[in-house]
Amino acid sequence: MREIRRIQDEARRTAAVKRPRWPMVILRTPKGWTAPAEIDHHMVEGSWRAHQVPMTDVAHNPAHLQILDGWLRGYKPEQLFDEAGKLRAELKELPPKGERRMSANPAANGGLLRRALLLPDFRDYSVPVEKPACSEVENTPPLGRFLRDILRENANNFRVFGPDETASNKLSAVYEASKKVWLAEYFPEDADGGELSRDGRVMEILSEHTLEGWLEGYLLTGRHGFFSTYEAFVHVIDSMFNQHAKWLEIGKKLSWRAPIASLNLLITSTVWRQDHNGFTHQDPGFLDVVANKSPEITRIYLPPDANCLLSVADHCLRSMDYVNVIVADKQMHLQYLDMDAAITHCTKGLGIWEWASTDKGVAPDAVVAACGDIPTQEALAALLRAEFPDIKLRFVNVVDLSKLMPDTEHPHGLPDRDFNSLFTTDRPIIFNFHAYPWLIHRLAYRRRNHDNLHVRGYKEKGSINTPLDLAIQNQVDRFSIAIDVIDRAPRLRDAGAHAKESFKDQQIECRRYAYANGVDKPEIVNWKWPF
Amino acid sequence: MREIRRIQDEARRTAAVKRPRWPMVILRTPKGWTAPAEIDHHMVEGSWRAHQVPMTDVAHNPAHLQILDGWLRGYKPEQLFDEAGKLRAELKELPPKGERRMSANPAANGGLLRRALLLPDFRDYSVPVEKPACSEVENTPPLGRFLRDILRENANNFRVFGPDETASNKLSAVYEASKKVWLAEYFPEDADGGELSRDGRVMEILSEHTLEGWLEGYLLTGRHGFFSTYEAFVHVIDSMFNQHAKWLEIGKKLSWRAPIASLNLLITSTVWRQDHNGFTHQDPGFLDVVANKSPEITRIYLPPDANCLLSVADHCLRSMDYVNVIVADKQMHLQYLDMDAAITHCTKGLGIWEWASTDKGVAPDAVVAACGDIPTQEALAALLRAEFPDIKLRFVNVVDLSKLMPDTEHPHGLPDRDFNSLFTTDRPIIFNFHAYPWLIHRLAYRRRNHDNLHVRGYKEKGSINTPLDLAIQNQVDRFSIAIDVIDRAPRLRDAGAHAKESFKDQQIECRRYAYANGVDKPEIVNWKWPF
Repeated sequence: MREIRRIQDEARRTAAVKRPRWPMVILRTPKGWTAPAEIDHHMVEGSWRAHQVPMTDVAHNPAHLQILDGWLRGYKPEQLFDEAGKLRAELKELPPKGERRMSANPAANGGLLRRALLLPDFRDYSVPVEKPACSEVENTPPLGRFLRDILRENANNFRVFGPDETASNKLSAVYEASKKVWLAEYFPEDADGGELSRDGRVMEILSEHTLEGWLEGYLLTGRHGFFSTYEAFVHVIDSMFNQHAKWLEIGKKLSWRAPIASLNLLITSTVWRQDHNGFTHQDPGFLDVVANKSPEITRIYLPPDANCLLSVADHCLRSMDYVNVIVADKQMHLQYLDMDAAITHCTKGLGIWEWASTDKGVAPDAVVAACGDIPTQEALAALLRAEFPDIKLRFVNVVDLSKLMPDTEHPHGLPDRDFNSLFTTDRPIIFNFHAYPWLIHRLAYRRRNHDNLHVRGYKEKGSINTPLDLAIQNQVDRFSIAIDVIDRAPRLRDAGAHAKESFKDQQIECRRYAYANGVDKPEIVNWKWPF
Repeated sequence: MREIRRIQDEARRTAAVKRPRWPMVILRTPKGWTAPAEIDHHMVEGSWRAHQVPMTDVAHNPAHLQILDGWLRGYKPEQLFDEAGKLRAELKELPPKGERRMSANPAANGGLLRRALLLPDFRDYSVPVEKPACSEVENTPPLGRFLRDILRENANNFRVFGPDETASNKLSAVYEASKKVWLAEYFPEDADGGELSRDGRVMEILSEHTLEGWLEGYLLTGRHGFFSTYEAFVHVIDSMFNQHAKWLEIGKKLSWRAPIASLNLLITSTVWRQDHNGFTHQDPGFLDVVANKSPEITRIYLPPDANCLLSVADHCLRSMDYVNVIVADKQMHLQYLDMDAAITHCTKGLGIWEWASTDKGVAPDAVVAACGDIPTQEALAALLRAEFPDIKLRFVNVVDLSKLMPDTEHPHGLPDRDFNSLFTTDRPIIFNFHAYPWLIHRLAYRRRNHDNLHVRGYKEKGSINTPLDLAIQNQVDRFSIAIDVIDRAPRLRDAGAHAKESFKDQQIECRRYAYANGVDKPEIVNWKWPF
């Protein structure tokens, strides 16, 4: 203890942080210490046999019962307990009192130590959106500036985690508040952009396991954190996520355990933008793993733009005892909602976008729904207004995936009456989804209109395609969605043949251009909402 | 090379295997070696900046274009290529020829080296089943004896892998053919049951990552393997599975790449038998991860008994270029099919069990389906014959999960006409499933009778419950399934109220007994098919 104090004092006095050799006590014992040395001439204490129940037949085997009797008497119960079977008073005096007991140490019930984060107003980081889907920004940098100021306001209980990707995920603004922690050797060139510091609060290491472990320990001891990681490789921590979610679920039921900060995961560098990395980096399946865990614990958000991402992140950072999974790509994307509209939209979790819909006051020909940044853009570009000026389409955007479940299955679930009025009970629904399409069916299969629900999503088709080519291969592109609408909306089925033909021609032409030029056609890349 | 030969010769001559220090050459280069040392006064070669594209604006920035030009000229193309741009003849002579080229080394295209396994007749390991569901055995030991003899017949190209669980998973018969490989220190007590050997072919280490890596390397270099692991912790290798499945899918499309042996995974110590380990060991969600990958690659089998497990394992060990996932618990279970019936059943992948059905020649009141060992037992005990002597129920067992998908989605998928005749187009289906219930909806949502499909499965409810108590909590128990049938079959809805009441009473009584005694009632534990 004196050595620990000495190290701490020196660091505080001299401000010369280095990596200390913390003293520790190692108690090394035989495996199964105090078990019988041998049973039936087989070694037990100190051997692998002590890993399981050493004797399973004591009820029927008197020789084994005798060994068990001797073993238990070896603990000398007559010296430990009085005649009434109570622990003797002098022994009761031995253990430490109050918070000195290991089980009552507040750091072992970290919620007791948790202080709410001091959060700046996330609206101050908003990007201007004058007209929906007409301007582009990268979606994550505004969040980076928000996180930077959270780091500034909470210099002792908030850290940012990422597998060497804080910059790659375009959250580099955090370095204006705090650097990457690095206690080892420094080189002169590190001063130029290395963003290293001995007391940094940005935790980076190319090991999702280590980061998840650090973050869980940090949360469990009463602090707050934010973890950003590549979508395909968040599967590395599937098993750790599972166990943390199980822990949270049980912890919530224990009256004495204080709530801890939620585990906040930003999943970025997503499946739809892998023109450098390709097929290995395309796996949006972590959401399927998350959706298997208790609805009391799990929250999944797919904000379509930068303002929605800010609103969702603020909500997640204020929450407790959840695992919040936010899916948002880091690259340039169309912006749909100004901050007020984003807050309203994210608070509802899903909703009709009036400006994109043409069915006000009438029953729609079809409902076009989208969840995720790229799927939203492609669905908006598929609304067939030029081809059918009298078309009646309803456009629904989904941010909070749990809304698709019934309210009897998830606390965020939408009641059937609301789901039915949004998605209708008899019109075709074309749903463009960020991840594997069957997840939407798994969430919505109890809904009345489920037979009319047609979902597009990633189907494990891809390489280092251009964004549009990848979308076409998986049928989440604007042309495929428009064709789906024509195929499913009865009024368009025959009349739509010409338009369908033209969309197929355009798909072929776009793929031809992409293969020849390595990039998508400018009218695709620069597409804006034309109305 | 001489040192490698010396080590090999010595081992072969003296048979004294030890852990050699293989010689190796380490080439350590600066990161981004040969890149410009600096760009715009920022260090590039030897720094993290060399990880990304060092200059992205050469099309518009003449200074950067000049740096790029100098960089590329640094490779001296004029010395490497002739006037026609072809590699100079004397340089072409330098690389090794034929299989000495790294890319043409047969070990890098392991399928070329693969020899088919010599497989004993799996029928020789069958367990006798005179009457269905009347006798119990542990499901994995017969497979252990089959694997033992495969090890004997294939002493150079087959290994068994497991995270210290070969014995725990009741496959210990393999040690009769080969021991756990262990090259480090030996103690005298290891001779008593340690099952260690310097040339063992059973690979055990408590690291699913290491095992999966070993196995992938072994398969990719032309050999065969079998990996058994605990169900909840197979999630540890989710990400590695994903990448191997992607590799196989691409590899299949390359004409020059020879097929390799399938990756065979036995998932055991399953969710429904965790009365020692509890909630942390309950996670059947790996199947959801597997089902996201290409249907060309993935196969999922849930054999209900020991003979079916043998038949499935034999099929998997003969296959190539798949990931075969077999789910089967290791404990005592009822046996349903003799070997001939098991082969027929597993070859079809799913089917009606005549002996358990009462609807022959008429339309059933309901279809009761089951997939997995415990769900099959509980569904069989729920068939309501005593309560309704005239009941018409069809019993369907599913071994091959992909059968539930349409044949347009998976090569094993059942055509609609077959699915419709098995599951009807208008009768209620009560489906008792091993894993998370929504996976069945995700596979079968396109089927005509999907609206009548009611699935039970693990719902993330559990602790160290007795088997029946755990089943009741998740509603996969006999009483819940019987109640489901009463609730869903129109003819039983009113008449069944008394039976339903009795089942609810029995659930309460069974849970009371389990809590008081720590085990299930003898009539539950010893239940046999009574007809």
